[in-house]
Amino acid sequence: MSRNYQYEVMEEIKKRWSPRAFDPNKPLVDEDIYPLIEAANLAPSAFNSQPRRFIVAADPEKRQKVFDALFEGNQLWTKLVPAFIVILVKAEDDEGRKSRWTEFDTGTSFGLLSLEAVRRGLHTHAMAGFSPDKIKQNFELADGLEPIAVVAVGYYGDKRDLPEKYQAMEQPNSRLALSDIIVE
Amino acid sequence: MSRNYQYEVMEEIKKRWSPRAFDPNKPLVDEDIYPLIEAANLAPSAFNSQPRRFIVAADPEKRQKVFDALFEGNQLWTKLVPAFIVILVKAEDDEGRKSRWTEFDTGTSFGLLSLEAVRRGLHTHAMAGFSPDKIKQNFELADGLEPIAVVAVGYYGDKRDLPEKYQAMEQPNSRLALSDIIVE
Repeated sequence: MSRNYQYEVMEEIKKRWSPRAFDPNKPLVDEDIYPLIEAANLAPSAFNSQPRRFIVAADPEKRQKVFDALFEGNQLWTKLVPAFIVILVKAEDDEGRKSRWTEFDTGTSFGLLSLEAVRRGLHTHAMAGFSPDKIKQNFELADGLEPIAVVAVGYYGDKRDLPEKYQAMEQPNSRLALSDIIVE
Repeated sequence: MSRNYQYEVMEEIKKRWSPRAFDPNKPLVDEDIYPLIEAANLAPSAFNSQPRRFIVAADPEKRQKVFDALFEGNQLWTKLVPAFIVILVKAEDDEGRKSRWTEFDTGTSFGLLSLEAVRRGLHTHAMAGFSPDKIKQNFELADGLEPIAVVAVGYYGDKRDLPEKYQAMEQPNSRLALSDIIVE
């Protein structure tokens, strides 16, 4: 691990990182992923509005619909990823009002999801590089659901199975110093 | 606890909720809160951009500057809260570019923060009801830092110390069913 800590934090936080080498020989089924959605569902949200939705794509057909929406750079390393979760923001409430906190709240739920994955021996890698429109088309999403991240999910694999340029990147990335993120 | 779970999840997730009764006899100092910021700092973010910043308000002067920015409804129950964390979104990178993911990423970091708090026996309650402008003024924030949440932090207290209307609300709130948040 290339990260330093000044303070002790929980194991799942220390172990969490976003690898690219996933094990294609340990496939997942929907039931393996639902507990991660349960974790996300228990996150707080402004006025308990719960503006987050999830597509679980573990079966080959759904998995392909997600893969098809990834940008090329992500397709290069996700070929062996057994499953994806698409995170959607419900941008308006039932009365059509927008909230300042929908994306923040959805992010909070992903934080809990990512740690529950670690507890279960799984890894996650959230991606920004995909076409939200393709996700909407491929899954015929209802209006008002905005895909904000695609998360690769699975067990850790062998980095030698990655394209060479990604092998060199296969380690936890760095962080700002605490003094840089605490505003005085 | 009024919440039901279909799947087992980590203790810190099950124990986490957003109470209002904090213990005024267990004050916090900055060093009690820095480990929570460490947890937040280890969250993932798009392109590792880390667009989250934090004000730690444990000493009486800073605490008052935050309290002063809360809406009246929140001032009613936060009088005994020993400390606040203000969560800020860094909306643009150093080249002035906005990202789609700044708020999502900042929310993710709050997710990790909230669970590390539970591990340490602390509770958190994130609030949307405050004036971002007052926070900016009171702390003379640099341009580009947008307050998105104020988090009450402390040990659990006695709900009989709350105004009556909040005593009745002092329990974990409900959640949608998993089947309502998983999009097929």
